Amino acid sequence: MRIFGIDPGSVRTGYGCVETDGGRHRLVMCGALSVAGGRASLPDRLLAIHCGLTELIAEARPDCVVIENLFHARNVRSALTLGHARGVAVLAAIQAGLPVIEYTPAEIKVAVVGYGRAEKTQVQQMVKLLLGLDTAPSPHDAADALAVAICHVNAQPRARVAGVLAVARAPKSATSWRHYRP
Amino acid sequence: MRIFGIDPGSVRTGYGCVETDGGRHRLVMCGALSVAGGRASLPDRLLAIHCGLTELIAEARPDCVVIENLFHARNVRSALTLGHARGVAVLAAIQAGLPVIEYTPAEIKVAVVGYGRAEKTQVQQMVKLLLGLDTAPSPHDAADALAVAICHVNAQPRARVAGVLAVARAPKSATSWRHYRP
Repeated sequence: MRIFGIDPGSVRTGYGCVETDGGRHRLVMCGALSVAGGRASLPDRLLAIHCGLTELIAEARPDCVVIENLFHARNVRSALTLGHARGVAVLAAIQAGLPVIEYTPAEIKVAVVGYGRAEKTQVQQMVKLLLGLDTAPSPHDAADALAVAICHVNAQPRARVAGVLAVARAPKSATSWRHYRP
Repeated sequence: MRIFGIDPGSVRTGYGCVETDGGRHRLVMCGALSVAGGRASLPDRLLAIHCGLTELIAEARPDCVVIENLFHARNVRSALTLGHARGVAVLAAIQAGLPVIEYTPAEIKVAVVGYGRAEKTQVQQMVKLLLGLDTAPSPHDAADALAVAICHVNAQPRARVAGVLAVARAPKSATSWRHYRP
């Protein structure tokens, strides 16, 4: 099973794809999308996010797309801007015909680190450990996107991920899943 | 000159296209996009907005797309949701290779009614009057989108709209234009 994680942002959008057999996880790809120069207008950045994710999802051929669900932002204005980026990211996933699954930041931290208020560096170190990498993925947006993907792996009943018959027991963090099927 | 106005919303997105020779304005098309049933998930609604606007813009063949710029929302959560809808609307415009122009709600009201705190019904009545319609456009999202388009017509130096040489004098509301060119 391949899971494509997205950490949306209007300046930089992290992405990371993880393959799992239910027990072991393997890094497929990761990185961050941004517009060269850094002074691009919002519409140009949206176009870059949408084009980039569309290509990467086609290349990674995942079974689903997982994206961080946000309820908080510094203020209404930054929430609006962030919403733009997240909107085109969700659009790229749904246009690829994939289910889109959301987790809150706290759910992701619990699933990856075991603690809902974990620091960013702790998340990065756990991502490195869980994927058996030599160094923590860089930039941090890429590590955050991989954490989103790993969260979904860990939240899945084992039987479903491994594709074998077993007693499926959904962990607590799965209760607030919101599945969107195209 | 043809101007395509958008009033973005996650449940209903208004659109309206206006043709102008600099003096007289004519309604080309207007309406509102929504997903049948009203209980669609946000990704499905985003897909509907993006697909719908892409088709409508191709049909209307405008010279530019004008969209309401929002700085306010009830709260951070509604700002995020609204941002999603606005993001895919901006994406549809920029993918069509058109310049995207933004105006604030106050600029739109000043340009259409002459008063920045005008009521919604006043805006609708002025849209009806300016386009020489028998009844106010319905639903109100369509009227709002037409108001956005008319705002840009009124904010344009007359020479540019009419395509003739004249003394171009940009009105006050044009000072905060933000032009995005693909």
